[in-house]
Amino acid sequence: MTPFRERLRDAWQRSGSLVCVGLDPDATKIPARFAKSAEPIFEFNREIIDATHDLVCAYKPQIAFYSAEGAELELEQTIAHIRQRAPHAIVVLDAKRGDVGNTAVAYAREAFERYGADAVTVNAYTGEDGVRPFLSDPARGALVLCRTSNPGSSDFQDLLVDGRPLYQHIAARAARDWNTQRNLLLVVGATYPEEMAALRKSHPEIPFLVPGIGAQGGDLAAVLNAGLDAKKQGLIVSSSRAIVFAGDSVAIRLAAQQLRDEINSLRA
Amino acid sequence: MTPFRERLRDAWQRSGSLVCVGLDPDATKIPARFAKSAEPIFEFNREIIDATHDLVCAYKPQIAFYSAEGAELELEQTIAHIRQRAPHAIVVLDAKRGDVGNTAVAYAREAFERYGADAVTVNAYTGEDGVRPFLSDPARGALVLCRTSNPGSSDFQDLLVDGRPLYQHIAARAARDWNTQRNLLLVVGATYPEEMAALRKSHPEIPFLVPGIGAQGGDLAAVLNAGLDAKKQGLIVSSSRAIVFAGDSVAIRLAAQQLRDEINSLRA
Repeated sequence: MTPFRERLRDAWQRSGSLVCVGLDPDATKIPARFAKSAEPIFEFNREIIDATHDLVCAYKPQIAFYSAEGAELELEQTIAHIRQRAPHAIVVLDAKRGDVGNTAVAYAREAFERYGADAVTVNAYTGEDGVRPFLSDPARGALVLCRTSNPGSSDFQDLLVDGRPLYQHIAARAARDWNTQRNLLLVVGATYPEEMAALRKSHPEIPFLVPGIGAQGGDLAAVLNAGLDAKKQGLIVSSSRAIVFAGDSVAIRLAAQQLRDEINSLRA
Repeated sequence: MTPFRERLRDAWQRSGSLVCVGLDPDATKIPARFAKSAEPIFEFNREIIDATHDLVCAYKPQIAFYSAEGAELELEQTIAHIRQRAPHAIVVLDAKRGDVGNTAVAYAREAFERYGADAVTVNAYTGEDGVRPFLSDPARGALVLCRTSNPGSSDFQDLLVDGRPLYQHIAARAARDWNTQRNLLLVVGATYPEEMAALRKSHPEIPFLVPGIGAQGGDLAAVLNAGLDAKKQGLIVSSSRAIVFAGDSVAIRLAAQQLRDEINSLRA
């Protein structure tokens, strides 16, 4: 199979976009027009995918919204529909898995074999044996949580270890020891552009997944200024609520298109 | 509903046991006698539960082994069978969830509403808004990862912040700010009894979930010496592989009984 980094580069080039749509079908917010469907989550996602398939480099389903509803089958259907409508797109399973070795192997099977995802988000708190199973196949990527986008992210991620914040230690260790197949990425929230700039300086070649644009209030120009790599790529900019709950399919497409265009004009 | 801490105290007293059986039905290791079953994971678990129901205070299914196989229904059946055979027992969903606020709410729904678990393991790397949703119901518990039992646990958990390891900062923050309903526990691996002793000293009243006995090589006497509270309770000692893969149902019962008795003689 194609190495993950080639798949990602290809997704950027073929789509001409750094946008990732977060497929977070919060059951309490799915539009009323899907209320009578037998598969409301899948139908909602299908509308989003059909409206955005040519505008994005990636889709990122957040598994919690499926697991909470017992909607594993609808997640499988969603990924199958992405493969059909947007064969270039990377599928990132946002699952933030992290566990001891033999359990991490099972979680990797869940993400890559059961769901066929291209990449999965991973929490490195358990250390090396919890992360390695997600990196063993060069065709699949692991996105290690580094600096997250939420208010509580500073609680532990910013604690200083030898004068540097914890998240930089995690990034440094991941980059130095775990990225031998170039299939490791970092998750760096859009809400902290200064932190992102420092990470980009230390890790010029590692792609960042950037959540927090849109509903969480990240500043797009600051993010691109901080995070683009030397080729004006290197970012997967994820927006969820601001796109998927924008309105009807026309509004959804418009929201994704505006984000793509805004990013592309800023990186031109 | 009964507050979680009362439920746990009741489980300890009614079972006379600190043992928790980890229901980790690794598909590559399920005994051949279940090979022809339509529901091998559930049938395997049923045998384990029937053999141990009166010997344990808790069961801890590790969700990865179910998710990897698409066996959500068998997880539901397993929990229903625990409720029937061991109504006193605490069900800990070992899922190590950790995400930003609105996603953490969905994960809490998965654990507590979908599966009806009494408690769930939680990774606090994302900070306060990632943990709070698991603590909002006083009838349910959250077990925050502190010092895990695996080889890589020292990679980040031991990094020194102001002269103290990171895991102590997490424990201190959790105990100080998040445990207002006394439904927060800490996960402290059996393989690090010195670290456990220091945590017990700082947190005399917080129960610890202790994985790593058995296959991972934790020393039982050292663990009890380090971790028992003033009432000779305060621990949920979890063993998985050494019990569930002990052999037939007689061997499984014997393994659980020996662990219970060894613990009880050591704490007498």
